[in-house]
Amino acid sequence: MNNPSTLDALIEALRCLPGVGPKSAQRMAYHLLQYDREGAARLSTALATALAQVRHCRLCNSFTEDEVCRLCRSGTRDASTLCVVEMPADLMMMEQTQIYRGMYFVLMGRLSPLDGVGPRELHLERLLKRVEDGQVREVLLATNFTAEGEATAHYIGELLKGRGLRVTRIARGVPVGGELEYTDAGTLAQAILERRELS
Amino acid sequence: MNNPSTLDALIEALRCLPGVGPKSAQRMAYHLLQYDREGAARLSTALATALAQVRHCRLCNSFTEDEVCRLCRSGTRDASTLCVVEMPADLMMMEQTQIYRGMYFVLMGRLSPLDGVGPRELHLERLLKRVEDGQVREVLLATNFTAEGEATAHYIGELLKGRGLRVTRIARGVPVGGELEYTDAGTLAQAILERRELS
Ligand SMILES: [Zn+2]
Ligand SMILES: [Zn+2]
Repeated sequence: MNNPSTLDALIEALRCLPGVGPKSAQRMAYHLLQYDREGAARLSTALATALAQVRHCRLCNSFTEDEVCRLCRSGTRDASTLCVVEMPADLMMMEQTQIYRGMYFVLMGRLSPLDGVGPRELHLERLLKRVEDGQVREVLLATNFTAEGEATAHYIGELLKGRGLRVTRIARGVPVGGELEYTDAGTLAQAILERRELS
Repeated sequence: MNNPSTLDALIEALRCLPGVGPKSAQRMAYHLLQYDREGAARLSTALATALAQVRHCRLCNSFTEDEVCRLCRSGTRDASTLCVVEMPADLMMMEQTQIYRGMYFVLMGRLSPLDGVGPRELHLERLLKRVEDGQVREVLLATNFTAEGEATAHYIGELLKGRGLRVTRIARGVPVGGELEYTDAGTLAQAILERRELS
């Protein structure tokens, strides 16, 4: 109303952030312009830089600045096991257990029919291509134990059947309904050790 | 950990937004890079543009792209009444009542000793200068009816005493503890009509 148009544009632009509605976008814009112009400038640059630099690893599909990420390049990992997780944060939780030494594939999401995310949107064909590198023997499904994560694991399990691969699922030591990102490393380590064949 | 550094920088930069902690900054960064690169680019540009364009109106202290904002320039407003509000959103609420036709002064905050915001941080000297333009006869205090808003109104009232000005406060029609931004226009209109002399 009395807002200058560039301020209105900023408020509107902030709404691209998940969970940010009109009121909190307005509060954020006022806060930045009034109290943290330095932070706002840093954010503007960080967004532009990340957009220019960050892409998906050709092997694990996680975020990287290179064609193949550091972990996939390392050469010290067990190339015969491929762990499938939903998000990069889950990969990091797996790494923190220090028990898993194989490779990863990051789905960058989960099957979620209600949100319009089906097998096509998840680009599961990339996962199929990945497991056919001649080295992968076991696929360890480490999606969340939420309804969507379980459905995703089940779907991928069916997809990989009959390809001569061992398909496993981390043990349900992770609390039912819980998410990997919020699980302590000890519980998750147990769940990795107790992984079972997918029936 | 396995995050590329530009992604970590983006996550860190997002934390300048009020109410955004490490977990939600991470979720926001993933979301933008995965699902809304267009929105992220728009946000980056909007931030830079707003930083370059938006400043404070020399008269009312609200956000504007000009030296003096549209409302202060309009010439159709009653220059003898100056309404003091905390934030631009409060000014907009006042305007929506269509009852107030005077000028404004936007504090861009409120006295909040716990957050280190005292009279100096609020730049109340600008308000004192503003009321001495020879036209202002009445100062209508329309800060929130929260503890901090009330304290701010009281402090400004004391500050303006003995300057030959009428100092008024909008009526406590606004629910105690409530904020202007979330009040319906009818209630607020009533509160303007029932404004009382500050005792
Ligand atoms: Zn990789
Ligand atoms: Zn103005």
